[in-house]
Amino acid sequence: MRIAELSRRSGIAVPTIKYYLREGLLPPGELTSPNQASYDEHHLHRLRLIRALTDLAQVPVAGVRVVLEVLDSDTMSLHARIGTVHRAISPSRRLTASDDARTAAADQVRELIERRDWQVEPDAPAIGTLVETIAVLRTLGQDHLLGTLDSYAEAVERFTELEVAAVTSRTDPDQIAESVVIGTILGETLISALRLLAQENNSARQLGQNTRSKRRSEGTRRRA
Amino acid sequence: MRIAELSRRSGIAVPTIKYYLREGLLPPGELTSPNQASYDEHHLHRLRLIRALTDLAQVPVAGVRVVLEVLDSDTMSLHARIGTVHRAISPSRRLTASDDARTAAADQVRELIERRDWQVEPDAPAIGTLVETIAVLRTLGQDHLLGTLDSYAEAVERFTELEVAAVTSRTDPDQIAESVVIGTILGETLISALRLLAQENNSARQLGQNTRSKRRSEGTRRRA
Repeated sequence: MRIAELSRRSGIAVPTIKYYLREGLLPPGELTSPNQASYDEHHLHRLRLIRALTDLAQVPVAGVRVVLEVLDSDTMSLHARIGTVHRAISPSRRLTASDDARTAAADQVRELIERRDWQVEPDAPAIGTLVETIAVLRTLGQDHLLGTLDSYAEAVERFTELEVAAVTSRTDPDQIAESVVIGTILGETLISALRLLAQENNSARQLGQNTRSKRRSEGTRRRA
Repeated sequence: MRIAELSRRSGIAVPTIKYYLREGLLPPGELTSPNQASYDEHHLHRLRLIRALTDLAQVPVAGVRVVLEVLDSDTMSLHARIGTVHRAISPSRRLTASDDARTAAADQVRELIERRDWQVEPDAPAIGTLVETIAVLRTLGQDHLLGTLDSYAEAVERFTELEVAAVTSRTDPDQIAESVVIGTILGETLISALRLLAQENNSARQLGQNTRSKRRSEGTRRRA
């Protein structure tokens, strides 16, 4: 198909597709004349993946490039792919908490990892994110929110078991690799959206019931 | 304190602080002379919060502004604060999945919400994110990953109970509002980082054991 049809079918504007081509996120089409290229279903699939990563999972373009390289690699082990994707989607760490809070947070994270017997590299980017987030919560006087930490940790262990079961329902190694990468990133988007809905449900039941019933009976929908 | 000390204590460069002042994210200091302002602990606290939101939770600047307005409001109900923060941190929805996949995903989400008896507005931004993410997973041929959906939903219900318990351990309504807002946003960062660690643990145990022991015995640390 020509770029115009690729744009129509993907819902992505032609200039944006050209940007992805220039940035190397989308492989070039097959040249059918000096000024015209032809694209196929693989390009459409790749475009949808790029948009899911940038728009839904909010991965920056530099991270998207790394994720796509991981998907395209023929030689990378699954363990290496997981590690590389984790680094690509982890926030770059800038230090904003106070030093005291960070020392306490690092101890807390080390103890948590030992308690759960997690075999993780000491320089895993997620450790940095975890330490800094806990340190910031302490610095902001929100220590009481950290009471949820062990329950979060228990739940994510179960997530991982389920995710492994889902991924290994496939047999082709390439398909497994693609599922691991996409599942790691978009699984987080699913969890995050579900968590907001569970919070809204809780808030509506505990705090907003009256307002909502009134709005309902007026036949309007909440917008603001 | 002067802006230089605010910069030193927060670890944030003076031009960045000036940018936050211009953007209205940070309230102005008290003028001590026509060219000089004085800042206090409240400014330091606010700066750390801004950086936690932008760097750790990766909220865009426009979203940070909304979150800060929610925190500063004297009149907003807690339920309204939660709804406004949810909209500020939800990805803007662009449609990339195929239409068929989106229709199927919308049905699946409606059924999930009914099954769990969640009282949520039909135009909640998280519903849009959920529908589009599920639709994209289907469009990318990753339907099998959706087997985790109900378990994710169960887990986030438990998260919400724990989060409510943590937040209501405070009594001052202003403190509760601040905890809800910060906990909603940074709680997600905690869950996300913990999930990556649980995945790395699983991957190391199932896939990477040998590589890792070898590296360990060579006395090097994994970097790539």
